[in-house]
Amino acid sequence: MTSGVHNGLIAEIYGSRALAEHCTFCEILKNEKTASYVYEDKGTIAILDIRPINEGHTLVVPKKHYENLYEIPDEEVAYLFKIVKKVASTVKKATNADGISIFQNNGRAAGQVIFHVHVHIIPRYEGQRSHRLRYDASREKLDEVARKIRNQLTLST
Amino acid sequence: MTSGVHNGLIAEIYGSRALAEHCTFCEILKNEKTASYVYEDKGTIAILDIRPINEGHTLVVPKKHYENLYEIPDEEVAYLFKIVKKVASTVKKATNADGISIFQNNGRAAGQVIFHVHVHIIPRYEGQRSHRLRYDASREKLDEVARKIRNQLTLST
Repeated sequence: MTSGVHNGLIAEIYGSRALAEHCTFCEILKNEKTASYVYEDKGTIAILDIRPINEGHTLVVPKKHYENLYEIPDEEVAYLFKIVKKVASTVKKATNADGISIFQNNGRAAGQVIFHVHVHIIPRYEGQRSHRLRYDASREKLDEVARKIRNQLTLST
Repeated sequence: MTSGVHNGLIAEIYGSRALAEHCTFCEILKNEKTASYVYEDKGTIAILDIRPINEGHTLVVPKKHYENLYEIPDEEVAYLFKIVKKVASTVKKATNADGISIFQNNGRAAGQVIFHVHVHIIPRYEGQRSHRLRYDASREKLDEVARKIRNQLTLST
């Protein structure tokens, strides 16, 4: 999860061609922006949403820049959602959530804001209304939550 | 998509053991309840939600009874979401939607109502608020919409 490993992996697999300009996730992948990492492998990262609906709100993002679900090759969709399952189970345990909602939005009309495909994993609680207002979380707080989820991931695997 | 083919496939692959009692989707799979079919293969069905958020609101459902995402074996998660991608692209074309939202809820706290894992594919439109109230659609109307999506699926493959 250090910058070196991180950029090394990207270069090894995709080269710079796969990363888009003016894309928040590509900027994170190039270490031009910070993020609180939950998980990383050769093809995927999982980071915390900076405007979480609930604590532990995580985004699973393929490293290759695809705008939306329709664009990703089938085998990469398959891989992405295996990781979503793994991270969702872990987030549930780490946050003691009663449930988990998975959202994946395609197009501005669907609420997509960053046009690099990503999957939301949102911890949900009994008695809590469907959609709380989001809040801007501090990096310190996000890093603390990310650490908790990473620890759970280590315990589970 | 006829009852015969449908039940034949289920028996061939899973036997009756895989279907649960008192589960709406298992009842549909056993032809004890009707549904408007969009798609079917050996492991999966796609049917219209009877209380759609928008016209064309489709559910992709694995034939095997798993309660939630955490329970499905990785390879079946992978397959399920390849079908979600295929059906989502088709629903978008058939409904002329501006976007598509994918939801998958795990646990009552997350809004899960039927405890057999399923993925929502929801057509979205510019200028429309995030969540309209759902309405009960007539079977006739659902069948008409399902036919439109099936026709698009035939054109696309």
